[in-house]
Amino acid sequence: MPSTPALSAPSAGAAFDTTTIDRRKLRARDVLIDIKFCGICHSDIHQVKDEWGGSIFPMVPGHEIAGIVAAVGNDVANFAVGDRVGVGCLVDSCGECEQCRAGEEQFCSKGAVPTYNGRGYDGEPTFGGYSRQIVVSDRFVVRIPDSLELHDAAPLLCAGITTYTPLKHWHAGSGSRVAIIGLGGLGHVGVQLAAAMGAEVSVLSQTLEKKDDGLRFGATHYHATSDPETLAELAGSFDLILNTVSVNLDLEAYLRLLAVDGTLVALGAPSQPASVHPFALIAARRSLAGSAIGGLAATQDMLDFCAEQRIRPQIELIRADQVSDAYSRVERSAVRYRFVIDVATI
Amino acid sequence: MPSTPALSAPSAGAAFDTTTIDRRKLRARDVLIDIKFCGICHSDIHQVKDEWGGSIFPMVPGHEIAGIVAAVGNDVANFAVGDRVGVGCLVDSCGECEQCRAGEEQFCSKGAVPTYNGRGYDGEPTFGGYSRQIVVSDRFVVRIPDSLELHDAAPLLCAGITTYTPLKHWHAGSGSRVAIIGLGGLGHVGVQLAAAMGAEVSVLSQTLEKKDDGLRFGATHYHATSDPETLAELAGSFDLILNTVSVNLDLEAYLRLLAVDGTLVALGAPSQPASVHPFALIAARRSLAGSAIGGLAATQDMLDFCAEQRIRPQIELIRADQVSDAYSRVERSAVRYRFVIDVATI
Repeated sequence: MPSTPALSAPSAGAAFDTTTIDRRKLRARDVLIDIKFCGICHSDIHQVKDEWGGSIFPMVPGHEIAGIVAAVGNDVANFAVGDRVGVGCLVDSCGECEQCRAGEEQFCSKGAVPTYNGRGYDGEPTFGGYSRQIVVSDRFVVRIPDSLELHDAAPLLCAGITTYTPLKHWHAGSGSRVAIIGLGGLGHVGVQLAAAMGAEVSVLSQTLEKKDDGLRFGATHYHATSDPETLAELAGSFDLILNTVSVNLDLEAYLRLLAVDGTLVALGAPSQPASVHPFALIAARRSLAGSAIGGLAATQDMLDFCAEQRIRPQIELIRADQVSDAYSRVERSAVRYRFVIDVATI
Repeated sequence: MPSTPALSAPSAGAAFDTTTIDRRKLRARDVLIDIKFCGICHSDIHQVKDEWGGSIFPMVPGHEIAGIVAAVGNDVANFAVGDRVGVGCLVDSCGECEQCRAGEEQFCSKGAVPTYNGRGYDGEPTFGGYSRQIVVSDRFVVRIPDSLELHDAAPLLCAGITTYTPLKHWHAGSGSRVAIIGLGGLGHVGVQLAAAMGAEVSVLSQTLEKKDDGLRFGATHYHATSDPETLAELAGSFDLILNTVSVNLDLEAYLRLLAVDGTLVALGAPSQPASVHPFALIAARRSLAGSAIGGLAATQDMLDFCAEQRIRPQIELIRADQVSDAYSRVERSAVRYRFVIDVATI
């Protein structure tokens, strides 16, 4: 089995070791990728710290992977050595259930296999993109358009698809009023996507600190939710709200910002349940929904859309020895707007 | 001003007096209706007892009204003396806002005027159908098809439209799996409507006590939720769940019964907020929604659909002097399935 350098967390909350891990020998439909860049997602931190429970150690995080095909299995028809490719949050699914057939692999009824902190159907633990190489079934590899730099493509594989899917599913577009709660890793891509789809975009952020950025990303309005009058003034204003923050908000207050038939979509996963009175829903046929990443076909569509619309995450490129510091900064929202690891430094 | 006999509650929770109330003189677009039957809705009880706060007394409840046109204003073109008509939960709306223009008068941005326990735009309190006559703007009068008995039509004006609207809005039909929580006034009509639309219908009730009725109304499956295994076995089984009960349920447990992209719609309004963890929504792109009655065009469609499909509520016809006893029985779910007052006995 080929071994590859990786950043590995030996136990919950421990510092990363630079070590080597084994990747499986190429199967017929496998693609070996030389990873060039990997984004840091807030969920990497939750899982390395075992904040959701059930984490598997040692752990090599990373599900925003961009690189170059280094080898392909005998039956791989769609990829060749040298291709620019990406891998997101999933590396396998049953391929046969209703959801897989519908291209919604993230909802595979057998349980899709996460890129790291999971186990493949063979029982082996999965290791993610904080490493120099990865082996992935060709069904879970997407093509990175030529006009998109690899370091820009990486964060789109999670932050991009997580916001793209609900915008498409709930029909964001011309004439719709979309609000994005939180201008962070997800939010700053979501604003660009929604604006490019033709929606009128508002950002709901605690303060006006990032207002200039929000407007530059394509928002028309930017509101500070720390001002108690903001939520009252915005009642009934939006058709779709994406909640990108993973702290507990007063969701009922945000539901009241929805117009008739509006939907508030939870993308982050706070640790505590939300308290919601059905009256807030009944009064205007509102919905509180949730959405998780997206299927592989949608992920490819999203990358193509970003290339065409010139949508780019705003990133800070770091070395492997800066990951621990980067984690601290993500936790205190002191990043604009996504860290990307230069994997050559591992 | 014409006066008419009515059952009037002088204060919160007090017994009804038989008294007379004034109805306004006919305006140009008004219809005077001789009320023949009025259904008893659970919300009548909540409001008479001021359980939602803000009740206006004296109160004449009743928003499931069926009768015969007795007179019409000069500009009424669509109704004539002798017509069989109904009035539901609303008697006015602005007619100009986006929602009114879309035929969703229940969400009028000026605030639709409820049939009772509200105030008209002239500031006068509204009095409902526990009375012998009512005067209503022709926009809020619907036609009762000839094949529908007036006493059967009455409960459809609230219980019918409250379940019809979400079934249509969330596309219940052939191939969809619909569950109805609670087989009461709303539920027993909802089961019939969903089955007539072609959906596969399941009832989720505390016990199997009303199973025979449920199957007779058109359900294919009937489950007792008091059995702790029921909810586990039904995980991921439904596309749409209508929650017709107004007590607090463990909504998160019911959300897990939804398949990918499924929606649970709250129709009842419990006094306490629900606790919902966004994970239950995110894991399968589920939605928790609410729905309130329906617009006037939809109400007419619903009556026509019931006539055509031979859908009838199962009612118990009572005299005015039995209303107090009927309230007690509604509160302990000891009615199968809707009380209807014979208004001639007031």
